[in-house]
Amino acid sequence: MTVSATEALDAAVFNSDGLLPAVIQQFDSQEVLMLGWMDREALRRTLVEGRVTFWSRSRQEYWRKGDTSGHAQFVRAAALDCDNDTLLVQVDQVGAACHTGTRTCFDGRDLAVTTIPNE
Amino acid sequence: MTVSATEALDAAVFNSDGLLPAVIQQFDSQEVLMLGWMDREALRRTLVEGRVTFWSRSRQEYWRKGDTSGHAQFVRAAALDCDNDTLLVQVDQVGAACHTGTRTCFDGRDLAVTTIPNE
Repeated sequence: MTVSATEALDAAVFNSDGLLPAVIQQFDSQEVLMLGWMDREALRRTLVEGRVTFWSRSRQEYWRKGDTSGHAQFVRAAALDCDNDTLLVQVDQVGAACHTGTRTCFDGRDLAVTTIPNE
Repeated sequence: MTVSATEALDAAVFNSDGLLPAVIQQFDSQEVLMLGWMDREALRRTLVEGRVTFWSRSRQEYWRKGDTSGHAQFVRAAALDCDNDTLLVQVDQVGAACHTGTRTCFDGRDLAVTTIPNE
């Protein structure tokens, strides 16, 4: 069952700053591209306009991804998590998701980890 | 180049509550399983112990995923994003990632979206 945009806006739980984290994933390759923040209006625009819009915490303004860079994110699907406080958006990303020019904001930023067997 | 755990702990940027969001992704299928929160100590344990540990905001305690449920997350890789304020962890998830019993916290929670062509 698919939840309507209106129902989603009422269900979504925002933090004390009125924001929720949105994980952006390339719909076909499944790469995690970036994480951005949305207020209720940015979420509304993202669900109904077909393009991802964030709230820029640094600039304190709406930021429709790609309007300046050309690197737009076309929405293909979206889901809220079990607590309704995190959004996952499947997109078709034009060019680089990261302002540094890499495809994702995590590319080339690997951390050393200890791995143990899954048993 | 891979960043050491010590360097990562110094580089990581935490919010005013001392936390950063951690996106958890199944390493092979690339499913986004869930989003959790980590403070500096949870991040340290995750990088060096081989199992994902969160800070539980509701219970105000460390929460090593799977200790109660058996649904552990074995760390395979991790990266900080370009702003050092979001973590992406590739894991091998045992069983269901979600406390509701679904494989991911986003399963069956699709929202209606408008899609427009990527042109």
